[in-house]
Amino acid sequence: MKYNLRNLEKNVFTIFKKIGCNENDAKTVTEILLSAELRGIPSHGIIRIKDYLLLWAGNRIKTQPNIRIVHSTPTTAVVDGDSGFGMVVAKKAMEIAIEKSQQNFTGMVAVKNSNHYGIAGYYSMMALKHDMIGISMTNGNPLVIPTNSIDRFLGTNPIAVAIPANKEPPFVADFATTPIARGKLELAEKKGEKVEFGLVQDKHGNPSQDPSILKHGGGILPLGGDITHGGHKGFCLSSIVDIFSSVLSGASFGPFVPPQVAYLPLNQNAPGNGLGHFFTAMRIDAFQPAKDFKNYMDLWIQTFKKARPIEGIDMITIPGEPEREFEKKLSKEGITVNDKVLEELENTLEKLSIKSPF
Amino acid sequence: MKYNLRNLEKNVFTIFKKIGCNENDAKTVTEILLSAELRGIPSHGIIRIKDYLLLWAGNRIKTQPNIRIVHSTPTTAVVDGDSGFGMVVAKKAMEIAIEKSQQNFTGMVAVKNSNHYGIAGYYSMMALKHDMIGISMTNGNPLVIPTNSIDRFLGTNPIAVAIPANKEPPFVADFATTPIARGKLELAEKKGEKVEFGLVQDKHGNPSQDPSILKHGGGILPLGGDITHGGHKGFCLSSIVDIFSSVLSGASFGPFVPPQVAYLPLNQNAPGNGLGHFFTAMRIDAFQPAKDFKNYMDLWIQTFKKARPIEGIDMITIPGEPEREFEKKLSKEGITVNDKVLEELENTLEKLSIKSPF
Repeated sequence: MKYNLRNLEKNVFTIFKKIGCNENDAKTVTEILLSAELRGIPSHGIIRIKDYLLLWAGNRIKTQPNIRIVHSTPTTAVVDGDSGFGMVVAKKAMEIAIEKSQQNFTGMVAVKNSNHYGIAGYYSMMALKHDMIGISMTNGNPLVIPTNSIDRFLGTNPIAVAIPANKEPPFVADFATTPIARGKLELAEKKGEKVEFGLVQDKHGNPSQDPSILKHGGGILPLGGDITHGGHKGFCLSSIVDIFSSVLSGASFGPFVPPQVAYLPLNQNAPGNGLGHFFTAMRIDAFQPAKDFKNYMDLWIQTFKKARPIEGIDMITIPGEPEREFEKKLSKEGITVNDKVLEELENTLEKLSIKSPF
Repeated sequence: MKYNLRNLEKNVFTIFKKIGCNENDAKTVTEILLSAELRGIPSHGIIRIKDYLLLWAGNRIKTQPNIRIVHSTPTTAVVDGDSGFGMVVAKKAMEIAIEKSQQNFTGMVAVKNSNHYGIAGYYSMMALKHDMIGISMTNGNPLVIPTNSIDRFLGTNPIAVAIPANKEPPFVADFATTPIARGKLELAEKKGEKVEFGLVQDKHGNPSQDPSILKHGGGILPLGGDITHGGHKGFCLSSIVDIFSSVLSGASFGPFVPPQVAYLPLNQNAPGNGLGHFFTAMRIDAFQPAKDFKNYMDLWIQTFKKARPIEGIDMITIPGEPEREFEKKLSKEGITVNDKVLEELENTLEKLSIKSPF
């Protein structure tokens, strides 16, 4: 079903309002979910609402959390999200990082007791209008294996870095630290296709091409795949995201990260508190006059745009370009929500006795 | 040839002393080169001295640089390395980051006008004894292709992150943002072996198994390899390292990074100044009481050590473990320097009329 952006926004907003979010928070969750849809990442958009509702109904997400700073220095803070929606908690935390950076040039904020926060890129991009570099990362449900293991101990643990330029659009990298996203595995499974080797392994640690392997005890490999292809470096990267998101904040780490779907029970013995994120904001004028930095960044982008492409490719892609193209197109044309996704959402609303706005 | 650690140190120190480094700087370069040897990364050790000497003889490295802070805030600085040895410049810059962090909880230092700095991990580990997390990254000679390109525009751009623990040894990740190091390609070439697909491409951008492909216009792929295996994420990561190391500091970026071998000429039209690095130091008590952080980090490490290994593997490896094992072993047993490496070094010393201490 195709929706005009404003209508879809209104409907989503209504849902979060109905379950008890205040005006601002409902707007925040809506904006970030819609931002995922607009940027061509529907795996982090409308499809998640069903799970969010079930987590809320199971008392695992609070609509009126008491989000607070529990530790603070002039340049850093730890935020307790009090089990709020990840988007509400994360936006607040990134705002704090930006404030710290405004006052003291750089700001870092670690977050505990949060939940799934949608697209990592949204928070990093919040820094851009302040002439800052923004960094955002989060841990997540364990689906990924440490190199040489058969245990799923890490999330797809994304990193996003947004860097402002002058005439050129900003550089925005937003990527999971795995070769493939769970959503793409599901898609391949639905189509009855195999995936290439180097993306997943079976429950014994053997290479696999089965996109449904997660259902049979298999795991996603870290970025790089096997050791020959540098998978141990992807494991390093994923571990760094996990440690920054949890050990700095006191959130749960790796295998203890609370599942973000209601059908998986909470681990009552988790050593930390909820899911964790980590944010950094850096004023570019902490290093160079802002204008100089942005002009030099223009040159970086222009230079890389001029790299000679492989035959058959028009031009190389700067991180952030594809998402920007989607955003331009879909803002105009509207957003198509998969019928199955919509049906499941409406069923969930009905089950929870919430009148569907759709 | 096998050397006792102290003897090898003395010899290397003598060389750097003879070409004009002061006592301290000669000690710094020696220590960091030897640290690479000890940690089992000889590609960044003695083998590099020959190139360093030739760059010095070509007036591209200064032995008595005027390293200075050219921009400073309470939490950040930009350092101009004045074409000094990368090790001397980088150690100084990381010390500044640590000082800033001591005073204001976090410190970030961007560096321009530097040179090859050896192993990235050395600088990140400097933070550990201060109960800080250390981050180190550098750009480097262009050998790596941006996704979809045939141009070598990026270095192997390593990232190192060191995180202290309490009873457990620290977590130290130190990795190039490529699936394979140049040194490993050279090794395969010498052995007459092919490499696996997914590591390098030929000059047209076709997949290749030829380890000598860099000599024929080919390039190294970013971590992940091709797009199906997430190579575009490796490109993001490598770009981030390049931008942090150059655009924040004013160093040259990507294709303009000055070659660290004397037989490749300097690009006189490079838009920036020399090679760049980026360092971060973060007090762990900026987030948690240091003791709590370190205990929780112990638990992280112990938990991951307990992940079930694939059959045939004893135990999974925590980042930093293999290098620590090497260090323990080689400190005792001594360091074997490849005869060919030694011969080339002695030839270079002779050519430069420097009496060999070997």
